[in-house]
Amino acid sequence: LSTAPPPRRTGHALVPRLLGQGYGEAQIAERRRWVEAETGCRLDEVGATTMAGEAMRGNVENPIGAAQVPLGVAGPLEVHGEHARGVFYVPLATTEGALVRSYERGMAAITRAGGATVRLLADENKVCPVLTYTDAAAAVDAARRLPELLPELAAAGGATTRHGRLLAAVPTVVGRRLIVAFSWSTGDAHGMNMIVRGSDAACRLLAERTGAVDRLALSGMSSEKRPSGALLAGGKGKRAVAAVRLPRRVVRAVLGTTAERLAEVWHATVLGHLSAGTIGYNGHLANGLTALFIACGQDVANVVNCAVGVTDLEATAEGDLHASVNLPSLTVATVGGGTGLGTARECLEMLGCAGTGKAPKLAEIVAATLLAGELSFGAAVGSGEMVAAHETYGRNRPDSPAAADSGGDEARAPEAAS
Amino acid sequence: LSTAPPPRRTGHALVPRLLGQGYGEAQIAERRRWVEAETGCRLDEVGATTMAGEAMRGNVENPIGAAQVPLGVAGPLEVHGEHARGVFYVPLATTEGALVRSYERGMAAITRAGGATVRLLADENKVCPVLTYTDAAAAVDAARRLPELLPELAAAGGATTRHGRLLAAVPTVVGRRLIVAFSWSTGDAHGMNMIVRGSDAACRLLAERTGAVDRLALSGMSSEKRPSGALLAGGKGKRAVAAVRLPRRVVRAVLGTTAERLAEVWHATVLGHLSAGTIGYNGHLANGLTALFIACGQDVANVVNCAVGVTDLEATAEGDLHASVNLPSLTVATVGGGTGLGTARECLEMLGCAGTGKAPKLAEIVAATLLAGELSFGAAVGSGEMVAAHETYGRNRPDSPAAADSGGDEARAPEAAS
Amino acid sequence: LSTAPPPRRTGHALVPRLLGQGYGEAQIAERRRWVEAETGCRLDEVGATTMAGEAMRGNVENPIGAAQVPLGVAGPLEVHGEHARGVFYVPLATTEGALVRSYERGMAAITRAGGATVRLLADENKVCPVLTYTDAAAAVDAARRLPELLPELAAAGGATTRHGRLLAAVPTVVGRRLIVAFSWSTGDAHGMNMIVRGSDAACRLLAERTGAVDRLALSGMSSEKRPSGALLAGGKGKRAVAAVRLPRRVVRAVLGTTAERLAEVWHATVLGHLSAGTIGYNGHLANGLTALFIACGQDVANVVNCAVGVTDLEATAEGDLHASVNLPSLTVATVGGGTGLGTARECLEMLGCAGTGKAPKLAEIVAATLLAGELSFGAAVGSGEMVAAHETYGRNRPDSPAAADSGGDEARAPEAAS
Amino acid sequence: LSTAPPPRRTGHALVPRLLGQGYGEAQIAERRRWVEAETGCRLDEVGATTMAGEAMRGNVENPIGAAQVPLGVAGPLEVHGEHARGVFYVPLATTEGALVRSYERGMAAITRAGGATVRLLADENKVCPVLTYTDAAAAVDAARRLPELLPELAAAGGATTRHGRLLAAVPTVVGRRLIVAFSWSTGDAHGMNMIVRGSDAACRLLAERTGAVDRLALSGMSSEKRPSGALLAGGKGKRAVAAVRLPRRVVRAVLGTTAERLAEVWHATVLGHLSAGTIGYNGHLANGLTALFIACGQDVANVVNCAVGVTDLEATAEGDLHASVNLPSLTVATVGGGTGLGTARECLEMLGCAGTGKAPKLAEIVAATLLAGELSFGAAVGSGEMVAAHETYGRNRPDSPAAADSGGDEARAPEAAS
Repeated sequence: LSTAPPPRRTGHALVPRLLGQGYGEAQIAERRRWVEAETGCRLDEVGATTMAGEAMRGNVENPIGAAQVPLGVAGPLEVHGEHARGVFYVPLATTEGALVRSYERGMAAITRAGGATVRLLADENKVCPVLTYTDAAAAVDAARRLPELLPELAAAGGATTRHGRLLAAVPTVVGRRLIVAFSWSTGDAHGMNMIVRGSDAACRLLAERTGAVDRLALSGMSSEKRPSGALLAGGKGKRAVAAVRLPRRVVRAVLGTTAERLAEVWHATVLGHLSAGTIGYNGHLANGLTALFIACGQDVANVVNCAVGVTDLEATAEGDLHASVNLPSLTVATVGGGTGLGTARECLEMLGCAGTGKAPKLAEIVAATLLAGELSFGAAVGSGEMVAAHETYGRNRPDSPAAADSGGDEARAPEAAS
Repeated sequence: LSTAPPPRRTGHALVPRLLGQGYGEAQIAERRRWVEAETGCRLDEVGATTMAGEAMRGNVENPIGAAQVPLGVAGPLEVHGEHARGVFYVPLATTEGALVRSYERGMAAITRAGGATVRLLADENKVCPVLTYTDAAAAVDAARRLPELLPELAAAGGATTRHGRLLAAVPTVVGRRLIVAFSWSTGDAHGMNMIVRGSDAACRLLAERTGAVDRLALSGMSSEKRPSGALLAGGKGKRAVAAVRLPRRVVRAVLGTTAERLAEVWHATVLGHLSAGTIGYNGHLANGLTALFIACGQDVANVVNCAVGVTDLEATAEGDLHASVNLPSLTVATVGGGTGLGTARECLEMLGCAGTGKAPKLAEIVAATLLAGELSFGAAVGSGEMVAAHETYGRNRPDSPAAADSGGDEARAPEAAS
Repeated sequence: LSTAPPPRRTGHALVPRLLGQGYGEAQIAERRRWVEAETGCRLDEVGATTMAGEAMRGNVENPIGAAQVPLGVAGPLEVHGEHARGVFYVPLATTEGALVRSYERGMAAITRAGGATVRLLADENKVCPVLTYTDAAAAVDAARRLPELLPELAAAGGATTRHGRLLAAVPTVVGRRLIVAFSWSTGDAHGMNMIVRGSDAACRLLAERTGAVDRLALSGMSSEKRPSGALLAGGKGKRAVAAVRLPRRVVRAVLGTTAERLAEVWHATVLGHLSAGTIGYNGHLANGLTALFIACGQDVANVVNCAVGVTDLEATAEGDLHASVNLPSLTVATVGGGTGLGTARECLEMLGCAGTGKAPKLAEIVAATLLAGELSFGAAVGSGEMVAAHETYGRNRPDSPAAADSGGDEARAPEAAS
Repeated sequence: LSTAPPPRRTGHALVPRLLGQGYGEAQIAERRRWVEAETGCRLDEVGATTMAGEAMRGNVENPIGAAQVPLGVAGPLEVHGEHARGVFYVPLATTEGALVRSYERGMAAITRAGGATVRLLADENKVCPVLTYTDAAAAVDAARRLPELLPELAAAGGATTRHGRLLAAVPTVVGRRLIVAFSWSTGDAHGMNMIVRGSDAACRLLAERTGAVDRLALSGMSSEKRPSGALLAGGKGKRAVAAVRLPRRVVRAVLGTTAERLAEVWHATVLGHLSAGTIGYNGHLANGLTALFIACGQDVANVVNCAVGVTDLEATAEGDLHASVNLPSLTVATVGGGTGLGTARECLEMLGCAGTGKAPKLAEIVAATLLAGELSFGAAVGSGEMVAAHETYGRNRPDSPAAADSGGDEARAPEAAS
């Protein structure tokens, strides 16, 4: 089979180009019908979106409607950040059964313990273009001139954007190539467009000043949407830490286990991660990130870099639990991208995070939410019962009595929050 | 500020528990109104879902409606797999402007070149529980007995599932702990629930037979939703390769560049990735994966492991381009999870991938789609113009003429497909 | 300066080629004098080697004498392996002050606790050649044929070596390239020569049978002398574990600390390693490996892969310490390479490890030695005093009273061994 | 066997403590005889060192003599650095047959092409102690105070050392722990002792000022003697680049291949490294580093961090080769450690690198040497003949005609240098 020649190809129909790129309701419907005809399927639910077609312009091309993802809510989550202060109810869009319940349980533990402490240590985004020189000496010369050229580069880059501000330019030389890590402050936007454009302007000037023979807008060294050691150590986006000390009694009452057992789970699973050559360590950061990001109109693909982090669980001599999540690359936005669209806007408003000035607050809530998930995950793994792991990954179907029981048990736990 | 004592906490309202866990339409509406009251926001669009509440049971808890994500379509994409054979139109749910256009351009290149070759090399999923023994000698003894015990373990594990089949059990000893990598065939389901349950049963038996003093259902060594070197080398889920040879003229006509330039981009960006200590190498696998996974009801958090891979671009002496994406950990499903829900089901049907027996076909289409994205991304980076990088990450707003032009240019490119 | 043109180059004298490649004593002396004349230095001590020139043939080219490295001895080290059983005194060649003392302290702790348990879980070495095909489908076809071709490949590969035996051939496809991991049993030799040659023969046959268009003897996927996640997860060479349970009183008496403090050091430093994106985790495996490898005529560059491992320190409820080192890629030899040369041969004989049949024994002693070093390192870091870290890295100079004291204190510790 | 109880242990003899810690010739001989008696071996060659016993004080404990490692010489190597300028003959201590010949071949290529360009981009060493606080907020507060405290910390740290100077203090917070990366200028010394001591003093003051409840002198985040992504991206020690452009005819005449073939080898082997989750990319940096480090009295265990780097080989349109090695963590010394001992001192003098002010020069020569090795390795792999890979790893024994021929062929190659 595999070596058979490909079938003779014939003309394949193109997705039709429609008036104004096809963002009108009629055009969207026409395109959807065209897809239905070509593929022989029905797209009724896809078409039943409440988003206006024109609202999607800039977020999607060839629109045919919207995907719907079930949305649950978890809380109360008490947060003591510098931007987010108070109690929150967190929207989570997911199809993974028990995920919302699991995060809710962790939130109950945090809240009952008085809330999570959250801090942001850095708030910058990076782009790393690459310039090529005739030889390594020239690349090094250019690298050495960066400090003196920085003001000029910042001016050139800054001229392309109202919100971005160039903070630093750090060189890496690889043979005759110079990779420059441009760090930017991006305000409340995710900012990749902004800083790619700004960095390109800076880079163009740098190329002129230093005689580069080629340049590329991206080198990949920033680890946007990729995992890397540099991401852990150097960060990208907001660098956040969320931590809580859970009293012994809260660990027992809400998580149904002990601090010592959670520390043991941490210890044993770290050994597993190390044995796999894993980047960082965490329980399931990706789950909460994904659910929150879909709900809140974030760039969901950023889950890949955001999920690079380090979770810590540690028992004190008194049987309390120190827990933290440490996120070197949390990239969130409250303006731009998908943040203004229909349900995303509503979800951001649920958190009091819609619009300008709210990105740090959103980052803190995200970090606290992830901490809740790590606590609950550790408790599930540590319980030693299938139902616990099942709780984490499982389906909560009526024909699955154990899972239903589990849901029931957990459902009671949050009631202890006060 | 940061050292101020937390505000005195008061009783925080719990998300109300409603009849039957609250999956009826009335209960969902009641819960949604409760959230609105607590948070002072409006959730009209969240509530406007076409999914029946009961349909969400097992996929989400505390449901309040659905998140809507703009859905576009890209194609035609010609695939020569062993399961997917023909031309496909691919649903992509995203809010990242220009993403659909970018993938469409790559698909046009592939299709015009006669289609992508796709193969699956392995199809198994892994769970790695950990057992603790009194000492290292006992852990090693247990590891050495695994081959003889495998039939018995397979029987015990297999008894918990209709679809899963235990294929192998590979030991790693870390001091007095034994981590066992249980590999399973999971049919068309994602299968994590299934194989966590099955592995736990096998593990329980193993613990009895070998005198383990403790066991945990998960060790993290499988790298589910995490990046690791083991994932690259050992795989998890479907191991897929998608490749195409683009003739020189197609590179020029559709991608607007040359094979040599794409090879240069590849070379320069690999150096950037290596300099960052990145796991694997790719342009933006995460983007396409996320858009496809949201559309098709996959477990979107799996993007983290699925995006660990290796993209290759290489120019031939004749100026053609060999391109491939190599995905050691592609985890997709066509049954279970969110695959049966409203828009997800419709999107799977668009691809002819709904239901039993379709997971390998879906995996092949995903791999070919990602290949398209890598081609287009490379072309954008290589063009040396801001508009190109912008095309990749950018907003296609009316007030952004360059982007609009770009969109227009690209829009023409696919017309060349025949 | 950096941009100045290079000075006009003139003819540079070549190292003289002498009779029989210059391994006679006279030729070595002549070459050494030539180097002295060219560089204006004196090489008297270099020339004062006891090795016969002809003995160096096959180990070095252009010989001019030998480098001398100070050699100390540490012990007693009690080992309970399957090959090494008893008490050993370990030769360590190093110039790092306090290293020998540090390992000796750890050995005292192990021995007083009754000895280290050591096991080898695998004993195989790998080479991963790469074949190129016309396209990915052909590469996959070849990968799929590996099982059926294995006997034939094993015969072809095995015909090139008396000692090596091909055990397995595991494929990885990257686009149109097929990387094959050939695993070999190599007896007591390091075996890289042997298995490169054997794998090349197998690969040549595989290329013929499957129509490869190119092949390279190495792909780097085996991680010989490089760190990787695959090395951790998949291993290369001997996979060894050494472990000990130190009673509370031994931790106190010999290491001057507590199990809880060592566990705390482990916990805190793992967080540091994770935050750096480190491969694996250990205190200073490289130190002991290097000292032992130089002493025993091993291929010292293999320290890079051998030092990829996982150290574990864990306190029990009773205050004892479970400690282990887990080495997935321990490559040692007792025949071939430098193992038969002068001082190396003597050092191997000190351990009862010279010659055929002794490599597993040597591996076990190395693993136990490294365990000793990790214990002592942890204690030094945990002591919280400069002298402790100094002990680990420091110079033991007469003008450094603290260090001298430290040496003295440590000197007493081993006396407690009984 | 493995579960049998350990044999009853009896008193094990301690290595005897002798007068003045036993550095006199008589004491060394007495200790050696004691070891001979305990282990039943003869240590005649170990005892035949030219180093005075007292000279070893501070470099080794329990001395019994010295290990001898065969020493060859490779050159001429033309270097255009900023510190090393001219032609060098490089001492290499190794037992790996063909290694010297291989490096010599690469040096011939470089020299014939006019020499290697070498630059150092940074010259600093790092230690990363860790402080623990009562909670994460306190750790973050301390991190934020670092800039204001830096002068005071630099004064405290600097008071402990004459040569070291504290350059920077960069924080990483992990929960309630603060890891501080202290960067130091260390002059010509390796400097780990110096900066561990200085950082500990700074850390002690920081702990007082910020109310830390615990501190450890090391966290492992600096990746001393360990591989990590942070090492690649952030560096440690000297950050060096060595590069050369080899004209087409030199590639052919000296390396016996083409730039295109070398680029193909690079491409194919990078894919292998990426597929293994390797940190960085190189051919065999560890080989040259180890041989040079043993010869020159360096801390050989640092090979682990020094070998983390990126090698690049790239063909130009004209068929020339751009080659470079990029070393983010090159840690070398010309004073202290083993640099003043017998043969090490002589080897450093061969390079004009003995003593104060020479460490940057040595770093440049090391980088150029490694470049030579990468070129030769690439050529060997690319030749497609067993003899080539054999040349790299092989034994040059009389009974191995192919290898002897290879040696002969290579021997001719350098004659082309002029």
